[in-house]
Amino acid sequence: MGRALRSDKLHETLLPKRIALPVFASDALSSVAYAPDEILLTLSLAGMAAYSFSWKVGLAVVVVMLTVVASYRQNVHAYPSGGGDYEVATVNLGPNAGLTVGAALMVDYVLTVAVSISSGVANISSAIPAIGEHKVLYAVGLVLLLMAMNLRGVRESGSAFAVPTYLFMASIIGMTLFGLIRAATGAHMEAESAGYSIQAEDSFTGIALVFLLLRTFSSGCAALTGVEAISNGVPAFRKPKSKNAATTLLLMGTIAVTMLMGILVLAKMTKVHFAADPETQLIGAPPGHEQKTVVAQVADAVFGGTFASPVFYLVLAVTGLILVLAANTAFNGFPVLGSILAQDRYLPRQLHTRGDRLAFSNGIIMLAGFAIVLIVAFNAEPTKLIQLYVVGVFVSFTLSQAGMIRHWTRHLKTENDPAARRHMIRSRVINTIGLAMTGTVLVIVLLTKFTQGAWIAILAMAALFMLMKGIRRHYDRVSEELVADLDEDMKLPSRVHGIVLVSKLHKPTLRALSYARAARPSVLEAVTVSVDPEETEALREEWDERGIEVPLKVLDSPYREITRPIVEYVKNVRRSSPRDVVTVYIPEYVVGHWWEHILHNQSALRLKGRLLFTTGVVVASVPWQLVSSDRVKDVGGYNAPGAVRRGEPSAKQKAEARARREAGRGTGGSAGGGGGATGR
Amino acid sequence: MGRALRSDKLHETLLPKRIALPVFASDALSSVAYAPDEILLTLSLAGMAAYSFSWKVGLAVVVVMLTVVASYRQNVHAYPSGGGDYEVATVNLGPNAGLTVGAALMVDYVLTVAVSISSGVANISSAIPAIGEHKVLYAVGLVLLLMAMNLRGVRESGSAFAVPTYLFMASIIGMTLFGLIRAATGAHMEAESAGYSIQAEDSFTGIALVFLLLRTFSSGCAALTGVEAISNGVPAFRKPKSKNAATTLLLMGTIAVTMLMGILVLAKMTKVHFAADPETQLIGAPPGHEQKTVVAQVADAVFGGTFASPVFYLVLAVTGLILVLAANTAFNGFPVLGSILAQDRYLPRQLHTRGDRLAFSNGIIMLAGFAIVLIVAFNAEPTKLIQLYVVGVFVSFTLSQAGMIRHWTRHLKTENDPAARRHMIRSRVINTIGLAMTGTVLVIVLLTKFTQGAWIAILAMAALFMLMKGIRRHYDRVSEELVADLDEDMKLPSRVHGIVLVSKLHKPTLRALSYARAARPSVLEAVTVSVDPEETEALREEWDERGIEVPLKVLDSPYREITRPIVEYVKNVRRSSPRDVVTVYIPEYVVGHWWEHILHNQSALRLKGRLLFTTGVVVASVPWQLVSSDRVKDVGGYNAPGAVRRGEPSAKQKAEARARREAGRGTGGSAGGGGGATGR
Repeated sequence: MGRALRSDKLHETLLPKRIALPVFASDALSSVAYAPDEILLTLSLAGMAAYSFSWKVGLAVVVVMLTVVASYRQNVHAYPSGGGDYEVATVNLGPNAGLTVGAALMVDYVLTVAVSISSGVANISSAIPAIGEHKVLYAVGLVLLLMAMNLRGVRESGSAFAVPTYLFMASIIGMTLFGLIRAATGAHMEAESAGYSIQAEDSFTGIALVFLLLRTFSSGCAALTGVEAISNGVPAFRKPKSKNAATTLLLMGTIAVTMLMGILVLAKMTKVHFAADPETQLIGAPPGHEQKTVVAQVADAVFGGTFASPVFYLVLAVTGLILVLAANTAFNGFPVLGSILAQDRYLPRQLHTRGDRLAFSNGIIMLAGFAIVLIVAFNAEPTKLIQLYVVGVFVSFTLSQAGMIRHWTRHLKTENDPAARRHMIRSRVINTIGLAMTGTVLVIVLLTKFTQGAWIAILAMAALFMLMKGIRRHYDRVSEELVADLDEDMKLPSRVHGIVLVSKLHKPTLRALSYARAARPSVLEAVTVSVDPEETEALREEWDERGIEVPLKVLDSPYREITRPIVEYVKNVRRSSPRDVVTVYIPEYVVGHWWEHILHNQSALRLKGRLLFTTGVVVASVPWQLVSSDRVKDVGGYNAPGAVRRGEPSAKQKAEARARREAGRGTGGSAGGGGGATGR
Repeated sequence: MGRALRSDKLHETLLPKRIALPVFASDALSSVAYAPDEILLTLSLAGMAAYSFSWKVGLAVVVVMLTVVASYRQNVHAYPSGGGDYEVATVNLGPNAGLTVGAALMVDYVLTVAVSISSGVANISSAIPAIGEHKVLYAVGLVLLLMAMNLRGVRESGSAFAVPTYLFMASIIGMTLFGLIRAATGAHMEAESAGYSIQAEDSFTGIALVFLLLRTFSSGCAALTGVEAISNGVPAFRKPKSKNAATTLLLMGTIAVTMLMGILVLAKMTKVHFAADPETQLIGAPPGHEQKTVVAQVADAVFGGTFASPVFYLVLAVTGLILVLAANTAFNGFPVLGSILAQDRYLPRQLHTRGDRLAFSNGIIMLAGFAIVLIVAFNAEPTKLIQLYVVGVFVSFTLSQAGMIRHWTRHLKTENDPAARRHMIRSRVINTIGLAMTGTVLVIVLLTKFTQGAWIAILAMAALFMLMKGIRRHYDRVSEELVADLDEDMKLPSRVHGIVLVSKLHKPTLRALSYARAARPSVLEAVTVSVDPEETEALREEWDERGIEVPLKVLDSPYREITRPIVEYVKNVRRSSPRDVVTVYIPEYVVGHWWEHILHNQSALRLKGRLLFTTGVVVASVPWQLVSSDRVKDVGGYNAPGAVRRGEPSAKQKAEARARREAGRGTGGSAGGGGGATGR
């Protein structure tokens, strides 16, 4: 019954397509805010004449986008588990390919945060120039804000994504339509930069021009980042999951390319001139001129031309918001990827337990830290950061498509149903086209961007790959060391020698003594280290006065050490009766504030750490709960970030389910409750 | 017999006077390197005419120095334990006075490092101007170097102090004599700055001049810092300890004033012009001129005048070295002070155990950290740092003298022997003069330096005072909470319910199971959390296959949490039988590298932390030593910094004493060994 309840509950958190689209699309759609800028500014290197290529490059990006979407529709059908590219590559191409994808995606998450936030700040400062003066500061502030929100475990809901994403779609598509209508009616629309001319950095002809166009195309491919998000989120969709996911994917792709081409066409119509290096290239601009983003210039031109229209501010606010939302998706995705990699023991094991707040926290802090390093290093300039960005995505696209081809080939070997075979062959063709396309783009990106900064991303990926390999090797070695044969000797120790550590005769010590006595060890003694002879004498007297039946042994410590005399004493006990187990009872204070940890238990902790190095010793902590410990009695109520995208219930829903489970148990009679467990 | 051996051993580490002098005097003597500079540069504010006061101010400092030395000779007789000013103030004036001294000394240790290192760098860069361009960098580097050396636990020896300290004395006194002889023979000796004139910052007359002279005197009193060192180190002297310490103190005071006056006289003879603000005040200096320290200018004038003499370089090298040595004494003293304050529970308890490396490490790192902050904030300029310096020393001098008067008055009440009474009355007179003197200087220092920077030091002392008060209050509250009445109920729990946590059936789990079984609890069960149904099924099968007699209980975890299901289960067990103790056995990996901790035990650690919040639960860690743990089997061989000054044996000597003890025990028959302990 408990399980049924939970599945019910889970269903409520699954996403209908109209909510799934905004939840997963914010990353992919937000790239519309910077991809046109990159296309135009790269072309600007060859001067104004090169701008005639802009919509052709845009079309090339659209073709790649649609191919990738078509390919990923095959992925979601074949791998509905949400493992995404990592799973596809691992299953079909082996663990090294999978790990490469994992490393590429981790680097990409960091860059998603850095690029989205930098571009967001660039867009907002196009509306409010004062922000542009401290853009690094604002960008770092935004990252820290996102980090704090995700650390606290914000309660996410589909509608929190839906409103800004739909607003963004509406404003960009609406702007495009409005602009086209105004153009059709012969209205005069000119961007701020329409009057400036562009100074070419060099004359590009022949091969150089082709190379520049390829570089432009590579930058434009930034529009494809985030397309793979849906393939990681299939489990969050309502049934039929794969079909709904595939439909949403197609929808997202179509909307993304529409928006991209819309902006490019409007930019062309309103004569946006966007320079790679505005200070030297923009001829005719007033001194101190700050170049505004393409979306800002287009919005201004379409809605008035004086940077005063409220619609202009609305478009930029929504653009900024969607970019922050896109950065937030990385905060959701990064810990989940970490959890998957940890499951395969490429990362510390504790990252695997998703329900755990701490496991997420570390990932979130690391992500924010690396993103901040990039933002500061590249001065929050999207253009520079984008040089690092695209390579990771295409590494993962390419390996994923290669994996899919293997997948179909393998399945075709065993499949006999002709209809199914036809379907598989069709899918394989699509994935093959996808592989050809993404592989080509990857090569182009590597060729045109390696020296521009892509080498940093590749280096980071390689380092991550090595690190994760090393961790896995360590775990494998340990696991080999620990494997127990079926006929493993399980002989019981002959006796238990109990030792209670005593410093003072207060309540914690008395509790430790009585618990130790309750365990009835073969030998039981109390041990104290004499640091101050007077204190020791006082302790001995109080011991007698209280009539404690356990003998008290005093260890001499001429150098006022505590740990060493005890460890040596325990070792001696072990040596004299090697078949005994020594159980050392340590009274421990349980405190409620972090700073209390600094004031208590430090010697106990260190002592414990040392004792554990001796074989045959069990260290038993006997807790004494100080009054202050009350404040941390319950730690529930944590919403793991990104829960919506994984179709997981919120902390509140979990607590409700738990309460119902408890109640359900209760009706089954008290024997089925907590007490019953012992009867197993 | 063991004890006798140790005392023998200890005696070898005690210091004869000829070694004790350099060990304790480096701090006090090193101030000769900056006190003359401060006197001259403060006077420079009133122009060249004011320089005529320099030796008079110097004499005033000498008078204070001799008075303080005479007073402290009473201290070392009355308090030979090494508690120093903190003990004197606490015993005689109460805990608040003691704590004030403690806070003042802590601030002073930080300043000792900052001032000595900054002055050291200033002196060295007088010889090598290139270093002056990056003085903050070199100063911070030196602090970090000292920190690293002290963290490693350098093996100290008296001679390591003796050589540079005697060299310093010899070079300064030798230079003075050589200079006087040359002057007597009519040699022409002129300092580099003799030709420049000094522009007064203002005209100082009447009250203003008196105030300036008092300020000069305050700065000159920097020469007194470090005088109290011997009173903290009486136990390290050979017998008769107090007498030897008092003699050494007098010797040190005499040498210090001789050196101070020597430098001041030479500076006057060679016409050193030393300005507070060389850029505006030094008239006639070439552009870009860097003002050299007084010691440097004097040494140059005496030994040639072209900054070329090897003796000049030797003097400056030795001066730099003694200053670094002085900073090092703070690294020795700070942790010891922390240990004394921790004993009185003003600081975290673990700082009290001196033998412990970690307790020292934290103090050393904190000291270095604060010193670096000061160096960076004040641009490694000794002049600025000295404004903060003197106030702490004189707070502690004054309170100590006040305490000594009370001490004698109290003892006079009970003393009847006339000779002893006379002696005490004489001592009380000396301490009263000392109090009047140091109290006056404290008031002068506060008046003349408060706005110059002394407020920072006072603020830091107040903050430290409050913090330590708060810590003490916390400990008192906890200790009250824990106090056990003599008739404290020590009823034994009725039964022990053992729970072994299982994730996999490897060696550590099998060991935990067999240790738990050896303890023969009333109920024993194994518990596992089902995160992945397949893994759980495999575990269950292996369990049956191995025929483990302990029942395996599987806890469901729909949200992949591990901690919560176990904690809830344990709570349920407690609820159903509140008089039982629940012992939870957790297999733990023991590892040898710090990074392995990140990869292992994290869930166990967290689980343990949570379980301890439940009353009636004992958490027993069953260690499994991984192969890598071998490398940290022994942690011996640590020399606590400052051991020489406390008359403590080195790690090697301790180990030898220990071995001899062991051997001694061995001859007493095996019954007297480890096994015998259980027979008590």
